Amino acid sequence: MFTATSPLPDLESGDIVIDALLGTGISRPLSGLFDSIAKHINNSKALVIALDTPSGLQTDSSTDSNNTIIKAAYTLTFECPKLAFLFPENEDYVGNWVLLPIGISQSCIDVLVSDNIYLTKDLVRKIVKRRKKFSHKGTFGHALLIAGSKGKMGAAVLSGKACLKTGAGLLTVHAPSCGYAIMQISLPEAMVQCDLQNNFFSGLDTRQIPKEKVVGIGPGLGMATETQQALKTLIQNIRKPLILDADALNILAENKTWLSFLPENSILTPHPKEFERLAGITSNSFERKKLLTEFAVKYKVYIVLKGAHTIVATPEGRCFFNASGNAGMAKGGCGDVLTGMLLGLMAQGYTPMEVCLLGVYLHGSSGDWALKKSSLQSLMPSDCIESIAEAYKDLEAL
Amino acid sequence: MFTATSPLPDLESGDIVIDALLGTGISRPLSGLFDSIAKHINNSKALVIALDTPSGLQTDSSTDSNNTIIKAAYTLTFECPKLAFLFPENEDYVGNWVLLPIGISQSCIDVLVSDNIYLTKDLVRKIVKRRKKFSHKGTFGHALLIAGSKGKMGAAVLSGKACLKTGAGLLTVHAPSCGYAIMQISLPEAMVQCDLQNNFFSGLDTRQIPKEKVVGIGPGLGMATETQQALKTLIQNIRKPLILDADALNILAENKTWLSFLPENSILTPHPKEFERLAGITSNSFERKKLLTEFAVKYKVYIVLKGAHTIVATPEGRCFFNASGNAGMAKGGCGDVLTGMLLGLMAQGYTPMEVCLLGVYLHGSSGDWALKKSSLQSLMPSDCIESIAEAYKDLEAL
Amino acid sequence: MFTATSPLPDLESGDIVIDALLGTGISRPLSGLFDSIAKHINNSKALVIALDTPSGLQTDSSTDSNNTIIKAAYTLTFECPKLAFLFPENEDYVGNWVLLPIGISQSCIDVLVSDNIYLTKDLVRKIVKRRKKFSHKGTFGHALLIAGSKGKMGAAVLSGKACLKTGAGLLTVHAPSCGYAIMQISLPEAMVQCDLQNNFFSGLDTRQIPKEKVVGIGPGLGMATETQQALKTLIQNIRKPLILDADALNILAENKTWLSFLPENSILTPHPKEFERLAGITSNSFERKKLLTEFAVKYKVYIVLKGAHTIVATPEGRCFFNASGNAGMAKGGCGDVLTGMLLGLMAQGYTPMEVCLLGVYLHGSSGDWALKKSSLQSLMPSDCIESIAEAYKDLEAL
Amino acid sequence: MFTATSPLPDLESGDIVIDALLGTGISRPLSGLFDSIAKHINNSKALVIALDTPSGLQTDSSTDSNNTIIKAAYTLTFECPKLAFLFPENEDYVGNWVLLPIGISQSCIDVLVSDNIYLTKDLVRKIVKRRKKFSHKGTFGHALLIAGSKGKMGAAVLSGKACLKTGAGLLTVHAPSCGYAIMQISLPEAMVQCDLQNNFFSGLDTRQIPKEKVVGIGPGLGMATETQQALKTLIQNIRKPLILDADALNILAENKTWLSFLPENSILTPHPKEFERLAGITSNSFERKKLLTEFAVKYKVYIVLKGAHTIVATPEGRCFFNASGNAGMAKGGCGDVLTGMLLGLMAQGYTPMEVCLLGVYLHGSSGDWALKKSSLQSLMPSDCIESIAEAYKDLEAL
Repeated sequence: MFTATSPLPDLESGDIVIDALLGTGISRPLSGLFDSIAKHINNSKALVIALDTPSGLQTDSSTDSNNTIIKAAYTLTFECPKLAFLFPENEDYVGNWVLLPIGISQSCIDVLVSDNIYLTKDLVRKIVKRRKKFSHKGTFGHALLIAGSKGKMGAAVLSGKACLKTGAGLLTVHAPSCGYAIMQISLPEAMVQCDLQNNFFSGLDTRQIPKEKVVGIGPGLGMATETQQALKTLIQNIRKPLILDADALNILAENKTWLSFLPENSILTPHPKEFERLAGITSNSFERKKLLTEFAVKYKVYIVLKGAHTIVATPEGRCFFNASGNAGMAKGGCGDVLTGMLLGLMAQGYTPMEVCLLGVYLHGSSGDWALKKSSLQSLMPSDCIESIAEAYKDLEAL
Repeated sequence: MFTATSPLPDLESGDIVIDALLGTGISRPLSGLFDSIAKHINNSKALVIALDTPSGLQTDSSTDSNNTIIKAAYTLTFECPKLAFLFPENEDYVGNWVLLPIGISQSCIDVLVSDNIYLTKDLVRKIVKRRKKFSHKGTFGHALLIAGSKGKMGAAVLSGKACLKTGAGLLTVHAPSCGYAIMQISLPEAMVQCDLQNNFFSGLDTRQIPKEKVVGIGPGLGMATETQQALKTLIQNIRKPLILDADALNILAENKTWLSFLPENSILTPHPKEFERLAGITSNSFERKKLLTEFAVKYKVYIVLKGAHTIVATPEGRCFFNASGNAGMAKGGCGDVLTGMLLGLMAQGYTPMEVCLLGVYLHGSSGDWALKKSSLQSLMPSDCIESIAEAYKDLEAL
Repeated sequence: MFTATSPLPDLESGDIVIDALLGTGISRPLSGLFDSIAKHINNSKALVIALDTPSGLQTDSSTDSNNTIIKAAYTLTFECPKLAFLFPENEDYVGNWVLLPIGISQSCIDVLVSDNIYLTKDLVRKIVKRRKKFSHKGTFGHALLIAGSKGKMGAAVLSGKACLKTGAGLLTVHAPSCGYAIMQISLPEAMVQCDLQNNFFSGLDTRQIPKEKVVGIGPGLGMATETQQALKTLIQNIRKPLILDADALNILAENKTWLSFLPENSILTPHPKEFERLAGITSNSFERKKLLTEFAVKYKVYIVLKGAHTIVATPEGRCFFNASGNAGMAKGGCGDVLTGMLLGLMAQGYTPMEVCLLGVYLHGSSGDWALKKSSLQSLMPSDCIESIAEAYKDLEAL
Repeated sequence: MFTATSPLPDLESGDIVIDALLGTGISRPLSGLFDSIAKHINNSKALVIALDTPSGLQTDSSTDSNNTIIKAAYTLTFECPKLAFLFPENEDYVGNWVLLPIGISQSCIDVLVSDNIYLTKDLVRKIVKRRKKFSHKGTFGHALLIAGSKGKMGAAVLSGKACLKTGAGLLTVHAPSCGYAIMQISLPEAMVQCDLQNNFFSGLDTRQIPKEKVVGIGPGLGMATETQQALKTLIQNIRKPLILDADALNILAENKTWLSFLPENSILTPHPKEFERLAGITSNSFERKKLLTEFAVKYKVYIVLKGAHTIVATPEGRCFFNASGNAGMAKGGCGDVLTGMLLGLMAQGYTPMEVCLLGVYLHGSSGDWALKKSSLQSLMPSDCIESIAEAYKDLEAL
């Protein structure tokens, strides 16, 4: 066993190093002897286990990569993850982190800096509504999904399936004509409304959207000029929160002035590239989180930034970091599934805030359940959809 | 423990109240002290368990909602449910009700007021016919399903699958041309007859219906003018009981004079909205049940009113309340499955009465079996179809 | 316990009657006292168990239905079933029959009258060929399936799937154009050759059939004039045994002179109605079996007469009665599955005789395995296909 | 027990013969007494078990079939298979061979003649990359699959599914228009790019292939003149290693001058017939292996020669013989699955060498896992795809 006060011994493969914070404080750059020790450890093949935080890592802001930071294989931390643990650039320093309970009774919500909340099962399970015995399909709402274009109809299929599996009472998919048979064969439970165009979305008679319908738009949508115009019309005429994903976001990115017309409390679900197109480039995850929060507050919308720890930024300026999910979900189509799930929850009358928190957690959890029957490489978005039931049951179990 | 004769103690969360009938009789409005006690209980957070019936609830007629009624979390009742327990408006008073056997040997049929019968497994299992060894596909009949229109072909798929899974020997689906490939891909076991129209049902050469075929019509049918006319022609020319669902019922609702042409012992399967369009608005479930019975008697048809406890009203004026099923079945497509199942039973030679009782129970039971592998939110009509075999086996087990 | 020599006691429900052959011999009409006793038993509600054969039943020829025959619930017979047990008209007399081994070492083949053979697992398992390690897809042959017409493409799908699941190395389906996408979506493992016609089979360039291909024709084929002509051309030009089913047989029935052109050792798979159309009406199963044998001998073909105990009649005049299968297989599409399985076996190089015996038994056995996961009412032809692997493994197990 | 020095005893069924090398050396033709003994053994019905190698079999070159070679039912060999055991022509001599460990610590790589390597789980498991937590769909690459033609779209479906199941992040399938709906229905996770032609591949704007895309071509492609031209253009313009299969290889065989334009380190996956068309006829497996190696070296490509022991020949002149797989994979479509798997690995950033070794082993292993739930006859390429996850997990298990 080796601690920072010993002389520097030779470290070989098989040795274990416990990093119990080099230097006198957390989140301060290493220097002098501490810096040398850290470099010595990083250059060795020993197995490094950090306590609380790897030495040299700033936990609440970006760390200058010129500084020395311990590269741990495992980090044992207490009650809640540090913010830095949730960002990709620190994966090599933090390694696999494990939460150890230390008897702090308050949940992670309070432990994390107030506006950064770790979204766990405990937090989410309170949101799930009991399904009453005398409910009927109308009780669970009618969702309208506008999705698909020539060559990308699969996105509409995945999104629609996920919507119904998440509990919507009824689903209508508005799709270009080239997607008609595809939808009806792949998802008999959904109704299909054909667009006038064969290959892309060109418009919707907004009178066709009765008040009780909730609307999601984007998966596989494409960016045809007519589609852009049709999205604009939809945004300007609808009075209820929308869910916007994928190409709907890319269209907004090319027409940033439309952002102000978005119905309040709408939900946007970009992946990092899409968010960059919408809001601009940032130099690290801390800055991006800041921009994300500002964007959500400015436009009074929820932003679901997809990633290993998907972030939900709220119009009140808070950020929730999702605890569920796995790297098997890094495959085309998984985002379409998320959009469908959010839409399915909104149809059931959850508030936009509840939709985001429950939806994001359920989505990751579906992937975790699906992984038990698959492998990280082989996991398919369709598998996640099949596991939504297990994710629900897990939330509802005592 | 607290009873009506004690002074009113403070009730806190965690306390248990047994409501053993306030006042001197059942089904009489509460007043005076009894009313005060009931209000006190309802305002508390105690767990309320009612015996027999929550105090203040009328069991065989509608209860004035201005009166005070105990809101129980559980109601323990004896042998059979009271009629009021089966209606949505009383869910908040009755809570979860549980049947306790008290050694009355006669079945629920006799306990309930003679014309209101609780449809249980014991009652239904006697109906199921043994499938003889030397039977062939002709033994189990040839069903004709007229269903689907542009954008609603899924209803035909679900209904057709359910028909074959329930045991029909052969199935022909008459569908608009836009549904041709959809049907053949989704259900290879069915034959498809294409309508002359691409988008909707426009007519059937009634000579195409040989005597041995049974006919169901409605799922996803749409309400095109030609479809309405075609339905009229069908009704006027067919001599055997029809099964009518969904848009077939909506068409009848717009053409009420056609009701008198319905073949005797036909089966209509409306949900409450559809029944309202057909027969008019009522102010509560008791009135609706009365209207339902009158309608069934007047037109000499069976009405299957879909709901948490689906009601089968017979031409003789009796009502059967289904015991099986769950809230996961409140999703678009579940009604189409029921229609298919009824058609499948009729093909096998069951009488219309048997078709209704066995079909309605089996349908709910399929949903209950499917739920074991899913969740209330995620249950899909397709899942119910997959569980029809289990529902049958459950009925046939000793 | 009651035997024929006792006076006639009252028989009540719950009593058990052992029928150990009334009268002095087997297969002789009952008369006098014996007749009275039999009538007395049949009129009672006692449970009747027959030993060897129900009294009064002719075992090797048709029984005059005016005679009295004991109606047993169970018949315990020895080593092998009597011929009469295998025919539908005797189901009510024989009830469920059970084979009891009595130490006769020879198999049923020898016990039954030499030309009537009971086709059991023991007999069939010797036929299955071991699949060698260094085999490749060519080793297992290339099957050509000509099937499907507008509205009946499902038959081609089921048949094709069964063909590949039975072990063919390659499959090409020749289908009308309206079936193109249906086939490719439903069965990606098959190649599709489109007919020049959209709705039906109109011809095949017989040069397209290389020598190594085996050909099956019929499922869902329809009876268009062009199809009839195309079948004629095929029969006249092909040199290898064909498998003919369904509408291919109905066409032959309308063109009986073509029968003589059938390639020797072809396999015809009619159900009783189709066989009647081909060969004429008979008054009972014994006569039909006689006609069947004559037909097979005359045209030098194998006839597979589908039923509860499917009969394989060989060109040598022998009949094999299948022991596997169940009443759940009495559903449209199960015959198509059989045709596909026979074709799949022929592709693998089995002789026509082996194809018939192994195919018929495997088909029934697949249904028996599928039944374990379903119910008699809900069993689907697709389920049988999924269980072909289990049927094979059952045959190959020690 | 019988050894070569005893007089020749009678051998009966049930006797066991241990063949511990007749004659004084390995791989020398038998003669004289040894030849007589071997003939005597081969003519008997005894169970023959060979040690090391059946007497008379040349292990590293072709054996003259006029010589006598012991026909063993089992061969027990040590550490590694002899080269001859891996070739079809020796199956009847070697029978089932079993590897016995004898404590040689080095793996089979070193035991086999240096350039012939037996590809086992131990060798392959080191190749698999860990999937990092913060990866996203871009991390796992974007694959472009050019596949399918009229009637052979199933090949594209199988190949595409396998590609995604193997772990590609994104997949675009370039297909003729007749395959559009087929692809989108069968594989919603893939995007589809339609060719200008309805029935076959006619060209790709090579600017459409961004640098990060990897390209596979061939399954079900057909050999239309336009397709040939389009392949030529692709080869001449692409700068990254291609994967070529099936008709892409047949086109190359008809245009052998194009071979020199193949991007270095491309992967070709012929079955023996296709390789023969490409490289010429050989008279036995040893010669074919020699030609294979020369071909791989000459054109600087990897050749995957499909068979019971698929061979990977590398541009450096080495050959790897796959240890996984089974005879159930001898069915049309299994090659398409392999192509998809290789493409999926290449998308994830594996080197062409790693792609070949890992892909070939995983493919066979998927078939082995799928076989556990099927039979040799019933195994379908689709089943193999479903088992890719199990094959991965098996590799990653300790």
